[in-house]
Amino acid sequence: MNYYPEKVEKLIEKLIKFPGIGPRSAERITHYIISEKEDIILSLAENLISVKKEVHLCKKCFNLSESEVCSICRDEKRERTLCVVEEVKDLVLIEKAGFKGLYHVLGGSISPLEKISPDKLTIPQLIERLKEEPVQEVIIATNPTPEGENTATYISEILKGMGIKHSRLGCGLPVGAEIEYVGTQTLKRAIEERKAL
Amino acid sequence: MNYYPEKVEKLIEKLIKFPGIGPRSAERITHYIISEKEDIILSLAENLISVKKEVHLCKKCFNLSESEVCSICRDEKRERTLCVVEEVKDLVLIEKAGFKGLYHVLGGSISPLEKISPDKLTIPQLIERLKEEPVQEVIIATNPTPEGENTATYISEILKGMGIKHSRLGCGLPVGAEIEYVGTQTLKRAIEERKAL
Repeated sequence: MNYYPEKVEKLIEKLIKFPGIGPRSAERITHYIISEKEDIILSLAENLISVKKEVHLCKKCFNLSESEVCSICRDEKRERTLCVVEEVKDLVLIEKAGFKGLYHVLGGSISPLEKISPDKLTIPQLIERLKEEPVQEVIIATNPTPEGENTATYISEILKGMGIKHSRLGCGLPVGAEIEYVGTQTLKRAIEERKAL
Repeated sequence: MNYYPEKVEKLIEKLIKFPGIGPRSAERITHYIISEKEDIILSLAENLISVKKEVHLCKKCFNLSESEVCSICRDEKRERTLCVVEEVKDLVLIEKAGFKGLYHVLGGSISPLEKISPDKLTIPQLIERLKEEPVQEVIIATNPTPEGENTATYISEILKGMGIKHSRLGCGLPVGAEIEYVGTQTLKRAIEERKAL
């Protein structure tokens, strides 16, 4: 049974598909949309369309970009260190952490279970890129999950074959965490990767 | 400093204005929008525009409606009991709790602090409506907040003057809470155990 006009129900259904949005939040957002000024909502709709139509993946690194090559790839002051990440959101977080090099966004991680093979990611493009574009080092910054670790190992083998210096993000205790609350696996890695003082 | 293309940053800024959406959720939603199929996002944008342009307030009760008079007001089987609520979302929740009468949406509550006087709400229209349209009873279902209680008292005085039987939602509503957040059963009890004023 519908309690709202059909168009409103449809909008709620679409908003529920957003990550982290449940039925109640979708209703609240819909009420916000109905009560907000018309020009604000029209500009939001236009913005949605323009992002969808005009924001593409950078031809070189697969970051989000309004032009063919993104602003990071076009920046000649960037250091020649290449950070390989799974997703654009990881790139943004590493950028916020102050990294000054270049990136390569894989578009996910290798997962035989989900039928994601290396050629479904941008790994072939990474290899081509490294042949043409010399870098000092590749930092493999995939997630420390089983899939991320597998992907890192796969890329590491290729880079070894190409004779390219590479590293993996350090693993251990998150800054500010308490030993009581980090998992056993994290603690295990923190012990393995302990640093002599 | 911008980490995303300008259009993406703008979209994130707009999403942050949604109720309950913080910067992180806005980023996650933006990533969802970029990775989702184009036709789904275009249909979402169209839906936003159509809701904004075609969903209006019912001429009689101020519920959301795609036509001049909403489906509840047009339903001749409805009981002649009029439930006065602050917002459309309250109407939907009372409807879900099984109420079979009619509604009147005030559009808020009287609040001298926020300069919301009775004439900024649909109280004048309620009075006109009650003169023309006889009802058996008016249930005042404003929130049990200071503003909602004030509004209820104000409406009650008018109804007394007009000689119209009326009541206030009673047992079940925890004082200080808002209708939006109490469960359906609580709301049902509040309707059953309403108190004559």
